Amino acid sequence: MNQEYIKPNAWSIIEEGWNPGLVKSSESLFSIGNGAMGQRANFEEQYSGETFQGSYVAGVYYPDKTRVGWWKNGYPEYFAKVLNAPNFIGIDVFIDGEPLDLHKVDKVSDYSRELNMKEGWYERTFIAHFSIDKAVKVVARRFLCLEVDELGVINYQVTAVKGNMKIEFQPYLDAGITNEDSNWDDAFWEIEELISEDHQAFIRSRTNKTNFHVCTFMQSELVQNGEHLQYANHLEQNNKVIRHTAAIELEENETVTLRKYAGYCSSLNHQQYELFDAARKVLTHATLTGYDVLLQGQIEQWAQIWAMADITIDGDLKAQQGIRFNIFQLNQTYLGKDARLNIGPKGFTGEKYGGSTYWDTEAYCIPFYMATKDQQVARNLLKYRYEQLDKAIENAEKLGFSNGAALYPMVTMNGEESHNEWEITFEEIHRNGAMVFAIYNYVRYTGDFSYVPEMGLEVMIAIARFWHQRATFSQKANKYMILGVTGPNEYENNVNNNWYTNYLAKWCINQALENLDKVKDGYDDDYKRIIGLTHLSGSETASWREVADQMYEPIDEELGIYLQQDGFLDKEIIPVEELDSKHRPINQKWSWDRILRSCYIKQADVLQGFYFFEDHFTKQELEKHFDFYEPLTVHESSLSPCVHSIQAAKLDRMDQAYEFYLRTSRLDLDDYNKEVEEGCHITSMAGTWMSIVEGFGGLKIVDDKPSFETKLPEQWDGFSFKINFRNQILHVQVSKSGTEVITYGTEPVDVIINGKEITLQPQLINA
Amino acid sequence: MNQEYIKPNAWSIIEEGWNPGLVKSSESLFSIGNGAMGQRANFEEQYSGETFQGSYVAGVYYPDKTRVGWWKNGYPEYFAKVLNAPNFIGIDVFIDGEPLDLHKVDKVSDYSRELNMKEGWYERTFIAHFSIDKAVKVVARRFLCLEVDELGVINYQVTAVKGNMKIEFQPYLDAGITNEDSNWDDAFWEIEELISEDHQAFIRSRTNKTNFHVCTFMQSELVQNGEHLQYANHLEQNNKVIRHTAAIELEENETVTLRKYAGYCSSLNHQQYELFDAARKVLTHATLTGYDVLLQGQIEQWAQIWAMADITIDGDLKAQQGIRFNIFQLNQTYLGKDARLNIGPKGFTGEKYGGSTYWDTEAYCIPFYMATKDQQVARNLLKYRYEQLDKAIENAEKLGFSNGAALYPMVTMNGEESHNEWEITFEEIHRNGAMVFAIYNYVRYTGDFSYVPEMGLEVMIAIARFWHQRATFSQKANKYMILGVTGPNEYENNVNNNWYTNYLAKWCINQALENLDKVKDGYDDDYKRIIGLTHLSGSETASWREVADQMYEPIDEELGIYLQQDGFLDKEIIPVEELDSKHRPINQKWSWDRILRSCYIKQADVLQGFYFFEDHFTKQELEKHFDFYEPLTVHESSLSPCVHSIQAAKLDRMDQAYEFYLRTSRLDLDDYNKEVEEGCHITSMAGTWMSIVEGFGGLKIVDDKPSFETKLPEQWDGFSFKINFRNQILHVQVSKSGTEVITYGTEPVDVIINGKEITLQPQLINA
Repeated sequence: MNQEYIKPNAWSIIEEGWNPGLVKSSESLFSIGNGAMGQRANFEEQYSGETFQGSYVAGVYYPDKTRVGWWKNGYPEYFAKVLNAPNFIGIDVFIDGEPLDLHKVDKVSDYSRELNMKEGWYERTFIAHFSIDKAVKVVARRFLCLEVDELGVINYQVTAVKGNMKIEFQPYLDAGITNEDSNWDDAFWEIEELISEDHQAFIRSRTNKTNFHVCTFMQSELVQNGEHLQYANHLEQNNKVIRHTAAIELEENETVTLRKYAGYCSSLNHQQYELFDAARKVLTHATLTGYDVLLQGQIEQWAQIWAMADITIDGDLKAQQGIRFNIFQLNQTYLGKDARLNIGPKGFTGEKYGGSTYWDTEAYCIPFYMATKDQQVARNLLKYRYEQLDKAIENAEKLGFSNGAALYPMVTMNGEESHNEWEITFEEIHRNGAMVFAIYNYVRYTGDFSYVPEMGLEVMIAIARFWHQRATFSQKANKYMILGVTGPNEYENNVNNNWYTNYLAKWCINQALENLDKVKDGYDDDYKRIIGLTHLSGSETASWREVADQMYEPIDEELGIYLQQDGFLDKEIIPVEELDSKHRPINQKWSWDRILRSCYIKQADVLQGFYFFEDHFTKQELEKHFDFYEPLTVHESSLSPCVHSIQAAKLDRMDQAYEFYLRTSRLDLDDYNKEVEEGCHITSMAGTWMSIVEGFGGLKIVDDKPSFETKLPEQWDGFSFKINFRNQILHVQVSKSGTEVITYGTEPVDVIINGKEITLQPQLINA
Repeated sequence: MNQEYIKPNAWSIIEEGWNPGLVKSSESLFSIGNGAMGQRANFEEQYSGETFQGSYVAGVYYPDKTRVGWWKNGYPEYFAKVLNAPNFIGIDVFIDGEPLDLHKVDKVSDYSRELNMKEGWYERTFIAHFSIDKAVKVVARRFLCLEVDELGVINYQVTAVKGNMKIEFQPYLDAGITNEDSNWDDAFWEIEELISEDHQAFIRSRTNKTNFHVCTFMQSELVQNGEHLQYANHLEQNNKVIRHTAAIELEENETVTLRKYAGYCSSLNHQQYELFDAARKVLTHATLTGYDVLLQGQIEQWAQIWAMADITIDGDLKAQQGIRFNIFQLNQTYLGKDARLNIGPKGFTGEKYGGSTYWDTEAYCIPFYMATKDQQVARNLLKYRYEQLDKAIENAEKLGFSNGAALYPMVTMNGEESHNEWEITFEEIHRNGAMVFAIYNYVRYTGDFSYVPEMGLEVMIAIARFWHQRATFSQKANKYMILGVTGPNEYENNVNNNWYTNYLAKWCINQALENLDKVKDGYDDDYKRIIGLTHLSGSETASWREVADQMYEPIDEELGIYLQQDGFLDKEIIPVEELDSKHRPINQKWSWDRILRSCYIKQADVLQGFYFFEDHFTKQELEKHFDFYEPLTVHESSLSPCVHSIQAAKLDRMDQAYEFYLRTSRLDLDDYNKEVEEGCHITSMAGTWMSIVEGFGGLKIVDDKPSFETKLPEQWDGFSFKINFRNQILHVQVSKSGTEVITYGTEPVDVIINGKEITLQPQLINA
């Protein structure tokens, strides 16, 4: 059974009632982030129950020395870990000297959490009963500013609901944090300097090895009835923690609020010696602006995001809540302002998986960012990989490739590979194809070819070189083969001729050749620069072409099916639905060898190819392959349901499409995979967006025109979404009575709506 | 280049000259053991240079919690580690208060080591120069008694070669030892009690988790000119170490000797509360018997071993030294007295690989022990697996098998799997076949069928059940297949239809069926007991038979070659000799994925099948397969050269056979694999023995008769070996003039010599 404690609500994630067993789950679900930093929804005050602490600064990581059972050549020396950063949210509270700790008080009542996605804040409310005569009500709201993304704000309001009492607040900074997933119990951080002055405190820490410097800072104020109260300053400072204090006597029914302004300034954005000054500036800005105005700014910023990114679903509150949660989390994780950053699979909601960048970005996230942001954002994501091309070449060299062949890493922070399962790290090479697909997809969608001569072609060349070298000529078959790979279906390892990989490899080479021609024809300077740089010769491209032309594709002629890999039909083919539920999920119930020799598929593999290259295949072919592979798919990857939802919609299997949609959109809210405690599945959330826009909305680009083939699940009264298509905003509204598309842009747009081509004239935004 | 510092000598391993860079290598090569315990050749006195400490007690292990990079279902929780045991050899020496430490003294001269294999002792000699005026000569000899296998003896003799001086000896016991390969830095041992009384000391320690109790003990005596001197007793005792002391003033050219009797008594052989008493008894025996008599006993014991196990090679000193080193080490490691013990891959020479038992025992070691010991020894080795059948069934259950199917572990101490690479642990299942082959081989060689009804048949049934369940019916091929395995060639992982595995599986099922019939016919009680125990039904055996009858064998019809696995010919087939030497060894130079997709073979795989089942194939078939596979083989496993040497000899390729022989017999002495520092390759030493007896001697059993097809490498003048064939001793002597076989047994023996059948009449041993 999935969990069902989150209350359905169109704009908020709501938990009601105190259940300590849900604390870690809610810490993930109520996480907040602003693209530059983020936190799990840990309590501000002391909590001695089970909790998983997590605060993260985007781009600040630690290369943790690899630890494996048995070393194999080629393993990367380090695994780049998302770092748990110093904690700035802490506010311990003492009531008449007794700590406020929900794990220890007599009783907790009226407990609730709300993550207000519309306005971008998180609030927790509860009444803590210390005895029959003494109780306090707490309303703690916090947000991480979008506008000043080094700033977090906490408004911690306490009311004496029973009895008179002395309340002492101890806001603190704690740099003595660790990672749960440290390999060797290394200290990831060194604390360099602690400063406590007036009402401000600063801790400058440095990451070991990577030498990121981060200044964590805070300033607090005590407010009652709109008045700022005086309060004591420094309480305690050891070598890891700075603790301030502010105490006040409250009579029954009186309220007092501690406001804490806090955050991080890091050496990513400042000179090391300027960190304290930068932090002081943020605090000055914050205190002068004040809580109410900052909150107002936050609401406005989120309103701007929603104006473009929102999707409405009518008549299905859980579906509505699901899609907004996905869109909200994506925007909390990555806003596209900084080309050095990327979209971590857990965003700012947990430390699991480490690394920030997977092929998820190229395969799943780019469409969302292309369609809901300025096209510069998607360009930044592409540029991120271009910047790491040298590292990708080094990575390939470590595995024995040469001549500028590039293998992009499976997981990375800085371009270096940092994953260490050989069957994935060394073999799941299809990721290289996603890099090229993303460029192709970007150009197709935005019409911005300039990226190719400027940066993209170099990436394509390096990847074509990789595929050329990685292919093996089989004398036997008189074909080029790709041996020893893991496809997107990670429940197969070291297989020969994964169809998806082979198909993608061939396509990548052809893309490189085509784009070489285009750049040669239209961008002479760039062409010369690139040829000078890569020493690409005609004989080299001829040998690429040979590999592409003679690439082997595993196929079963009898069934008319591309085979996931050589020998796939030697397996026992038993549909998932015939599997006793006691065996599910197989990744928890079966040993690895049993999974491997089974026919079960973790996530779209052949069908991933049909998704990427929809226009290469007929609907009948899609149907045949969907009918063959989907029944064998266990969807035990978060990336699986979205692709299948899109394809089910294309095949008019609306019930199935709807079911997959719910699964992808409420994966974390309903905890399908029983692991939300560790964090949310951020990158698959972009897949959720695709399942509406590309699935039910049927968006594809046909001859430079957006085409919509809309399908309305019968559970819905209607749905709507917007896309930015080449700087024109299209608003697509689907209801039982039909589909309407409006453009709010500046120019007429040619679109295809359910097969009919029309030219839309721009409307006023508030029309 | 291989190392060449060991002096060729027929009966001894000799090192001459002081080279600190060789200390760790020599610590492995000069290791001593007596089947019950063993030690690396660490120095008795303090040594601050690079060293790898190792003392081991057979059967005493620690289950170290598994550590992997990424957990996969089915991994065993623990890895059973060979334990570094308390050190009893330590004797610190001070010359006028200055420590004798070869890493620190002014100069070391006249340094040599000798491992006298004939007599079973190890001696180190050197002169240590403290200054121009002060030098001592040390002659330190030690041995581990074969007769009283809890006892070790050290004779540490010091002569003042320059100057008068005060010499202080500090014999000690040190229980504060650790393992280099600990996963989590656990303490493997708890020290429970330390006793120091008179000239004796005892430390009782307990292994954590496994609760083995070991009493390490010592007693020392100071001897000069045959007289026992008085000396002080207790010097120091902390919670880990007991240190005694004995000092004497020496004038130039005077000599003094410290004799230390020491050893282990363990709870494997004694009640825990009797350990101290047992240790006292050993010490009483030792001191009453005295050094000279103990040494004489040792020489006699080894003489008995050599009388049966020796192989002579005439005209090739290095080859002679090699084979004796192999035979010596095998006898140091395992003497077959105790069915709870087995043959660790490093014996008592290092801690690498952990575990004591691999399929090496069944595939490589049993023939040696069958032929050079009483047949009870081989029976004990078989019984070891029988005793662990329940664990093998549990092991299979953990991987999802049922109905009493057994999967024997890849590595074990107590029957539980303790290896954790999925591609080996879960997939290298051919090991199960070696268990059955060993039973078959034992019965064929010894004629003792009684083992089958008593124990072996149960093992065969459980293994047949495993293969039956592990096979997959391919609708496509209308055959049973075995998917997702690793064959003996560990440079392939997760392949389908490894020919060796499929062939062995089919053979195992047929063996079980045949032996069921034999037991049914001749051993009614056993048959009933076994059927009652296993609930084996006619329909079950029928379904086994179906799998065996329809087992798929990958073959290339065109080449007439059994394929190592499906798809093998899709690889680029380039002989090893065309590979640039900079790529060798590939396991150090290539990334794992590159190794996997290459055609290169680590050790005999298809050819292992041809070795086991020689009589199933013609010489022409062997030749064809040898010519195809050997050129693709890199022999990067210690188990590889011996099989190839045997097959080359069978094919009359004597140069190749000789080269492989040298490689297997001097693998450690010449350090072919650049890793002898970590210990010697004990189990492959039995392969060396096979390469002479089965290769050059051409021994096989034909219709219950030993048959010899002898071949003399041209580098040799002759060679000879003995075998115990069904309690008759055969002495085979091959020279340039021909082959002579003599029996020293009690009965006439029918033998086949180079195709000619003769009946040998027994001769007197000293004939």
